[in-house]
Amino acid sequence: MTKQSPADLAPRILASDRRALARAITLVESGRAEHRAQAVELLDTLAGEGRQALRIGLSGTPGVGKSTFIEAFGMMLTAKGLKVAVLAVDPSSARSGGSILGDKTRMERLSRDPNAFIRPSPSQAHLGGVARRTREAVSLCEAAGFDVVLIETVGVGQSETLVAEMVDLFVLLMAPAGGDELQGVKRGIMEMADLILVNKADGDLKPAAMRTVSDYAGALRLLRKRPQDPEGFPKALPVSAMEENGLEKAWDEMTALAEWRRANGHFDQRRAEQARHWFEAEVREGLLARLRQDPEIRAKMRELGDAVASGESAASAAAAEMLEQLGG
Amino acid sequence: MTKQSPADLAPRILASDRRALARAITLVESGRAEHRAQAVELLDTLAGEGRQALRIGLSGTPGVGKSTFIEAFGMMLTAKGLKVAVLAVDPSSARSGGSILGDKTRMERLSRDPNAFIRPSPSQAHLGGVARRTREAVSLCEAAGFDVVLIETVGVGQSETLVAEMVDLFVLLMAPAGGDELQGVKRGIMEMADLILVNKADGDLKPAAMRTVSDYAGALRLLRKRPQDPEGFPKALPVSAMEENGLEKAWDEMTALAEWRRANGHFDQRRAEQARHWFEAEVREGLLARLRQDPEIRAKMRELGDAVASGESAASAAAAEMLEQLGG
Repeated sequence: MTKQSPADLAPRILASDRRALARAITLVESGRAEHRAQAVELLDTLAGEGRQALRIGLSGTPGVGKSTFIEAFGMMLTAKGLKVAVLAVDPSSARSGGSILGDKTRMERLSRDPNAFIRPSPSQAHLGGVARRTREAVSLCEAAGFDVVLIETVGVGQSETLVAEMVDLFVLLMAPAGGDELQGVKRGIMEMADLILVNKADGDLKPAAMRTVSDYAGALRLLRKRPQDPEGFPKALPVSAMEENGLEKAWDEMTALAEWRRANGHFDQRRAEQARHWFEAEVREGLLARLRQDPEIRAKMRELGDAVASGESAASAAAAEMLEQLGG
Repeated sequence: MTKQSPADLAPRILASDRRALARAITLVESGRAEHRAQAVELLDTLAGEGRQALRIGLSGTPGVGKSTFIEAFGMMLTAKGLKVAVLAVDPSSARSGGSILGDKTRMERLSRDPNAFIRPSPSQAHLGGVARRTREAVSLCEAAGFDVVLIETVGVGQSETLVAEMVDLFVLLMAPAGGDELQGVKRGIMEMADLILVNKADGDLKPAAMRTVSDYAGALRLLRKRPQDPEGFPKALPVSAMEENGLEKAWDEMTALAEWRRANGHFDQRRAEQARHWFEAEVREGLLARLRQDPEIRAKMRELGDAVASGESAASAAAAEMLEQLGG
């Protein structure tokens, strides 16, 4: 573990050492208490540096061409001299052990690009754990000098909410729809979107993609106006990841939106709210972890639980006694 | 509040005073701290009496004839000299302000029966609050000498899990299905069921109901055998709440199952597990409530949250500091 000590890792991360970054992410993913303490120290050291990337959430159900999009979009950004990190939040990996980005061959070109860094979702973690790990990995990527951090997730509600809580912009990637169906996209997810990109606007699918763009544009106009949106946002646009069309336009819209939000105070305000939210979530999680981990507390929980289980005490009275012992 | 003091309410509840029972349930539903303290005292006093009812969870989506079933089933039980309480867990009432049992006219005969007690779901409570309230209302009904407590809920997953955690038997009420469709009942809910009753086995729908019974019987056989089930359970049966057919048979199956579980230790073991589960849930909830309520803790949370929001501290380091102050 000496090579992973915060004192050693911090300067290497600040010098954009990718291996140090990868090791630091492994450290924040670790469940061991000593690793956790080192991770906390490292993150606090790096927080002082104040480096920021543009954090972009990208959601899309399987089949919309997310990997192809990320590869093409990422290559376009690195060609501009920008450094791009790609992280994944995959709630299904907790169950299946698989991972959206597990197969790096899906983004072969981008994964070999020296200005790109791709990190798959860790397996065997509950959604809360994945959230903390991803949020901390974002901070590490920022400290390592990345300009853009893309956080990829799949379209299943809970993970979107979680990703929306840690990004500056939220992009929904969609496929062309048949007729007037809106691909069953949940209203809640649509309301998080800053930009809807309809992929596969190429070849035979182009007319359908253009129609889908205008359907979404119409649907977005029906949503309530949010204070953090300038005129015309949220917006729907066609892209073709395969033909690398529309990617520049999409990036222009993203930077224009981020600039407007920076100029109008929304950007910093949102970051502050997000940071506070995660701090509070971590305190809650830490409190609950104690019930599971502290041997003395566990023994008392078991003793009172036994009394409740045998019918001697009511659950509420036993809980009140436990809470008093926990420093009420 | 003098009339609601625990010292006054306890003996009246034990003497089956329905008004005292209703007041006690109002007390456990109250969000005020002084009411909470009284409720905890009352429940602990009554727990010592060790009275037990058969607790039956009843779930079914709107349109399956749940009210008609509960009325007919309840009247049959009271005709046997049994005292029946009906409680509702309605997660939608938290949002809509409505309530499944709000309209007592839906069970007009049963609500006038002196051996029956019907209590709608409280409005304006989150699901966790509804859970505690319902669980405590069940204890109050048991102390008041009810023989059967029916807990009604709607078929939407989360509330079923919650009800299954507080009952001895879980009954799914279904409508006859067309063809081989299984009404999209979620596998998780089906796995909770001890008994599936297919309602409306009368008139034109009778053949469809019988077919549906055999479809469910087939589906139940595919599920993994549970240790708490005797041979032949879980079971699917036809009933007609309207014609009051099959209700005796359903009750016989319920009592047979409960008897078997009592004789084989599963009944008491499950109650003990449930009690422990609710005790632990209440401790967790109480710990989190302190973060919101204790003025000193709130002030420190705000101060550290400000440091995190401004970027001075990392969320994880601030959370560690807060947890230390909370007695780590």
